[in-house]
Amino acid sequence: MALTGVTRPGHIQIRVLDLDESVTFYTEVVGLVETGRDSQGRVYLKTYEERDHHSVILRQAPEAGMDFIGFKVLNEATLDQLEKNLQDYGVSTSRLPAGDLLETGERVRFELPTGHQVELFATKKILGNPLGDFNPKPYNPGLDKGIAPVRFDHALLYGPNVNDALALLTDVLGFHLTEYVTLPDTDIKGALWLACSNKAHDIAFVEHPEPGRFHHVAFLMDSWEKVQRAADIMATYDVPVDIGPTRHGITRGGTIYAWDPSGNRFETFQGGLAPYPDWGPVRWDWNGLGAGGGLDVAKRMLHDTFLTVLT
Amino acid sequence: MALTGVTRPGHIQIRVLDLDESVTFYTEVVGLVETGRDSQGRVYLKTYEERDHHSVILRQAPEAGMDFIGFKVLNEATLDQLEKNLQDYGVSTSRLPAGDLLETGERVRFELPTGHQVELFATKKILGNPLGDFNPKPYNPGLDKGIAPVRFDHALLYGPNVNDALALLTDVLGFHLTEYVTLPDTDIKGALWLACSNKAHDIAFVEHPEPGRFHHVAFLMDSWEKVQRAADIMATYDVPVDIGPTRHGITRGGTIYAWDPSGNRFETFQGGLAPYPDWGPVRWDWNGLGAGGGLDVAKRMLHDTFLTVLT
Amino acid sequence: MALTGVTRPGHIQIRVLDLDESVTFYTEVVGLVETGRDSQGRVYLKTYEERDHHSVILRQAPEAGMDFIGFKVLNEATLDQLEKNLQDYGVSTSRLPAGDLLETGERVRFELPTGHQVELFATKKILGNPLGDFNPKPYNPGLDKGIAPVRFDHALLYGPNVNDALALLTDVLGFHLTEYVTLPDTDIKGALWLACSNKAHDIAFVEHPEPGRFHHVAFLMDSWEKVQRAADIMATYDVPVDIGPTRHGITRGGTIYAWDPSGNRFETFQGGLAPYPDWGPVRWDWNGLGAGGGLDVAKRMLHDTFLTVLT
Amino acid sequence: MALTGVTRPGHIQIRVLDLDESVTFYTEVVGLVETGRDSQGRVYLKTYEERDHHSVILRQAPEAGMDFIGFKVLNEATLDQLEKNLQDYGVSTSRLPAGDLLETGERVRFELPTGHQVELFATKKILGNPLGDFNPKPYNPGLDKGIAPVRFDHALLYGPNVNDALALLTDVLGFHLTEYVTLPDTDIKGALWLACSNKAHDIAFVEHPEPGRFHHVAFLMDSWEKVQRAADIMATYDVPVDIGPTRHGITRGGTIYAWDPSGNRFETFQGGLAPYPDWGPVRWDWNGLGAGGGLDVAKRMLHDTFLTVLT
Repeated sequence: MALTGVTRPGHIQIRVLDLDESVTFYTEVVGLVETGRDSQGRVYLKTYEERDHHSVILRQAPEAGMDFIGFKVLNEATLDQLEKNLQDYGVSTSRLPAGDLLETGERVRFELPTGHQVELFATKKILGNPLGDFNPKPYNPGLDKGIAPVRFDHALLYGPNVNDALALLTDVLGFHLTEYVTLPDTDIKGALWLACSNKAHDIAFVEHPEPGRFHHVAFLMDSWEKVQRAADIMATYDVPVDIGPTRHGITRGGTIYAWDPSGNRFETFQGGLAPYPDWGPVRWDWNGLGAGGGLDVAKRMLHDTFLTVLT
Repeated sequence: MALTGVTRPGHIQIRVLDLDESVTFYTEVVGLVETGRDSQGRVYLKTYEERDHHSVILRQAPEAGMDFIGFKVLNEATLDQLEKNLQDYGVSTSRLPAGDLLETGERVRFELPTGHQVELFATKKILGNPLGDFNPKPYNPGLDKGIAPVRFDHALLYGPNVNDALALLTDVLGFHLTEYVTLPDTDIKGALWLACSNKAHDIAFVEHPEPGRFHHVAFLMDSWEKVQRAADIMATYDVPVDIGPTRHGITRGGTIYAWDPSGNRFETFQGGLAPYPDWGPVRWDWNGLGAGGGLDVAKRMLHDTFLTVLT
Repeated sequence: MALTGVTRPGHIQIRVLDLDESVTFYTEVVGLVETGRDSQGRVYLKTYEERDHHSVILRQAPEAGMDFIGFKVLNEATLDQLEKNLQDYGVSTSRLPAGDLLETGERVRFELPTGHQVELFATKKILGNPLGDFNPKPYNPGLDKGIAPVRFDHALLYGPNVNDALALLTDVLGFHLTEYVTLPDTDIKGALWLACSNKAHDIAFVEHPEPGRFHHVAFLMDSWEKVQRAADIMATYDVPVDIGPTRHGITRGGTIYAWDPSGNRFETFQGGLAPYPDWGPVRWDWNGLGAGGGLDVAKRMLHDTFLTVLT
Repeated sequence: MALTGVTRPGHIQIRVLDLDESVTFYTEVVGLVETGRDSQGRVYLKTYEERDHHSVILRQAPEAGMDFIGFKVLNEATLDQLEKNLQDYGVSTSRLPAGDLLETGERVRFELPTGHQVELFATKKILGNPLGDFNPKPYNPGLDKGIAPVRFDHALLYGPNVNDALALLTDVLGFHLTEYVTLPDTDIKGALWLACSNKAHDIAFVEHPEPGRFHHVAFLMDSWEKVQRAADIMATYDVPVDIGPTRHGITRGGTIYAWDPSGNRFETFQGGLAPYPDWGPVRWDWNGLGAGGGLDVAKRMLHDTFLTVLT
């Protein structure tokens, strides 16, 4: 098989301070579609175009941040095999029952060395989207609601032991390293971009002393013009912007970083490279991250917030 | 592993009527870079950004068309395994020696039921590109030469028995079907789009009585604006255009079909869906291909040339 | 004064076969906003962003076409002066009373040598738009409705004596010729693009034996990507497309020609040159119009419909 | 006439600290074309597409800044008339001889109440551009050199008495006010955008105690994507960026502010409104300039450099 094992980021559960306000934000401003609520009060969302039942889950909590990120694997046999491989690697895993997340099968949960909860799952209801899958039209007014991203694309996580996470994700789960940044005056990798596909990245990490911290969830935009439109919408709805519009040198994607009402950062990401595993990673040093435009091609600086503002 | 087996279209050998004229065309107008010539007189080309030694090979011949298309597999062990799997499936294979194509390892060649020569290979020199892989700059004047595609993206082939090809490619080589068109008044698939990645397609087929025919080679463009620029360049250099600029309903990619000096069709392709195997294919009927905009969203017609002009 | 005399195309009255269907088309598909109806049953429309009370007027009639096009002049004194100048030039003029068109002052009507009714007016209510004129936000969901053009941009008219119209428009009304096409094997101008501003054109003409014929009304789009979106919307609502998406060599604007439900052609036009009067016009010969890409950069042909399908 | 009086910004003379370095910067990085040098050592430049002999003049001097900005008027009779009108208004004028600037006729020089030298001229050689004015092709490799702006678009000047400048420019020279910002807690206009055409602005002013200061020269870009490309080129050549890529709420144009090697700010500007004189200006208060996104839609702040870094 060509696409096997872990195929994509499937969902991310985000903690928000005020659920109603957040649902309004993610549906009206970001333009996601609510697809369900569960008995715990969690709200399930997807982009207009996504076919899976949900990709973003909001949970009200006293502190913002990410509860977990889930990756969809090819099928249940793959799930079983990867669970075993994780255990063989020395990773503790647990099973969450089917239905714990709406329309989702059993999930295998484990903790990364960075302190993040990650889970694998094989089954989730495919809802489809209003464009349909028979002679679909290229347009639908719903496609334009709010910022209107194409899909949940990736997340950037902060925590310790990113190189241990790298080993686990590459050796056990088949990710490949697409780009990395070395820490100042060392060859030690301090920031990592990894893919389980030919995307620029499906998940990324920055070395940080506190475990389990959340930098941002990213949504894919169709074009640089849609990133400009996202900035217009952010201005109209008073969404605070962190960085951008600009291009990341790393991944070469167009971007805006902004904050949701709870202080969770989200990204509107566009374009970017489509690297293959055998190319080997692109390497950046610490200076390249800042002055070299790795973070921000236009400003060429390491914005303070990049390293300090987390949830 | 997440990306395994067959990873990407790696090269395509195209027959041209006048080599010098064609090299000038592919370098000056399309903007490819010549990376070598071999003792048979074949000319090797890549896009500016591609990292592999070559992706397009031109061979002078009395008739235009495609000699073969080659897919890069993960590694030599995968090559051996897929060779065995093909043989077990009843497909005759042959090995071409390392070096037969410049900077390329052994290739496993076989014929599809459609009459096309396909090959798998695991090894090709990674040249890199002038942007480099350490603190790369986002721009280089070379990026703008000619139409300046990002990569060799896919090919569309015409021949008989496309459903047998579908079975082989999915069952043995791990491709998945992303979209298809049924023949008039039937449920029989007459046109197929397949991917070995999360691209909209890595190869495609249309049912046709003559074996081994070539519809087009596609190059990826960065944006719809770059497609417009491609049209401007085609006009400036008198490159005949077949269809476009328009959007394909199928794949949802922006496109121009045009012809090289030998009459081989090439496409400047942009955007498009990024489907996952478990979504299942998008289905079109014959009317959807034409009046439904499957081929051409703007014109919504089945252009005569689509079915009749081949090399 | 720098912008004086005739400042812009202010309105165009179009005959439609079925008023309800047409209003639905122009509001839902094109995305215009209805601003009024008068006692004659005419429907007044503007783009979302336009500030004048209306720019398009629809009148139900047994045959499609254009009733008249109106240009806004600087002020009432200018209107009086231009009326006198027209009369001095030998042109019969008539005054239509204020209020004959909703929220519009007196209009000076005359017939061009091409048989088209043209009018000048100085006064029309400035409605503004929902973005407002104090600390306006850059976005509003209404901006995205339908094809969502920025403004009524220009019209192309067919009739005899275009060179007489050229003389009148330049000598009396201060337009300047921006581009022209000479008839086959002659130096006679057979197609004309004229501006009263630094737009690529505010009105255009093609020599044609029948007087008073209408080729198209053009709406300005913000970008080439919005032209692609227009094509998507046309496909979704089954709007027949004549030419495009492509670029006109003439004006260098991005374009689609399509037909409204009555058979009136409309254009979604984008970009284009911003010429100044002293540059002198760009010249095209008949071959340049067709094979030279004057009409269609991508196809480089003189589409039959361009000369034959009129209302 | 429709376009009369003052038609456009025709040239700007900029002081640079090192002429050779600056010529390299403006030709290689910005992508202007050198068209001449005069006996004073000044270097004349134009964009690739501009048809006039020059639009930017570089003069080596110990301090950076703007020497003067020149506006092209319709013809010599207009020049005489405007000179007389200026004198009647109480403005001292002087004539600079034809040929003082290469290929340029006599210029009428005067000082604005803001302390800036402004000049009017009627005659400058029309060089044309390599695309030509007969059956022009839509593309030429020269169009892509460096940042590759379309034209010199406008300048922003800082000095005292901007309201006196406003009166002079509107009453005597026929400009119209398109947008303005009121000073904090007042109705006094402190920043002005004016046009002599239907551009978003041809010149702009900010109230400032020091006379004759220069904020930026702006170059027009074809699209928001070209603004992104400009940022990429700035990164590649280490050009320091002040603000952007972002959108100005004021004018609604896409923008980057960056600095040339002498510290003169230049802008890559794209899109923007096309207002007409009778619409009346868009009004912003001081909060609108900053938090309202007037300066920077994405960041919504009044960047310190906007008010303090001048040449």
